[in-house]
Amino acid sequence: MSDDLVRGLEPPYYTVVFTSHLEGDAPGYAETADRMDELVKEVPGFLGQESARVPGGLGITVGYFRDEEAIAVWQRNLEHQAAQRRGRQEWYRRYSIHVAKVERSYDFERE
Amino acid sequence: MSDDLVRGLEPPYYTVVFTSHLEGDAPGYAETADRMDELVKEVPGFLGQESARVPGGLGITVGYFRDEEAIAVWQRNLEHQAAQRRGRQEWYRRYSIHVAKVERSYDFERE
Repeated sequence: MSDDLVRGLEPPYYTVVFTSHLEGDAPGYAETADRMDELVKEVPGFLGQESARVPGGLGITVGYFRDEEAIAVWQRNLEHQAAQRRGRQEWYRRYSIHVAKVERSYDFERE
Repeated sequence: MSDDLVRGLEPPYYTVVFTSHLEGDAPGYAETADRMDELVKEVPGFLGQESARVPGGLGITVGYFRDEEAIAVWQRNLEHQAAQRRGRQEWYRRYSIHVAKVERSYDFERE
């Protein structure tokens, strides 16, 4: 899981919000998720990712991409496609994906 | 915290991705966050919200709104503004906000 937050960037850029509930213990899921976290970094135009999951509950992963082409490259990745198939067959009870174009952003850091 | 995921809706609609790190135990934060979760539901054009936080780590809240006006109404809410001020003074170490227009969405549910 990515434990850092992604700072606002110069718009426009894209965000992909992926929210999911896992089915039970979902054996093998964590390893594959870690592998995807590494693999997505190789996509040209990938800008960063944030993840959080309530133990036994909702998980949210937010990915940031420079443009639609970067999202398409990630979607066409064969190892990613295999992981998605396995996810639907074995790990996910439900998920929703919202693809959105970022128009503005704000950052705060305590002094 | 909202423990359910928000299904894809008819685009366009807006998403506000709020990611944060808390400062230490952040006393009083949970109560105020719960109150905000209730208050935002009164905003016309509010479509739903998802939240997850890694214990002691990153928290992600994703809000969905019909249009910019709905986001503006929520930002103008005085109780929300007071909570934001207190958040910057007492609770948050860092946060980032990305405001984005949703262009498409996908849903999966296991049969």
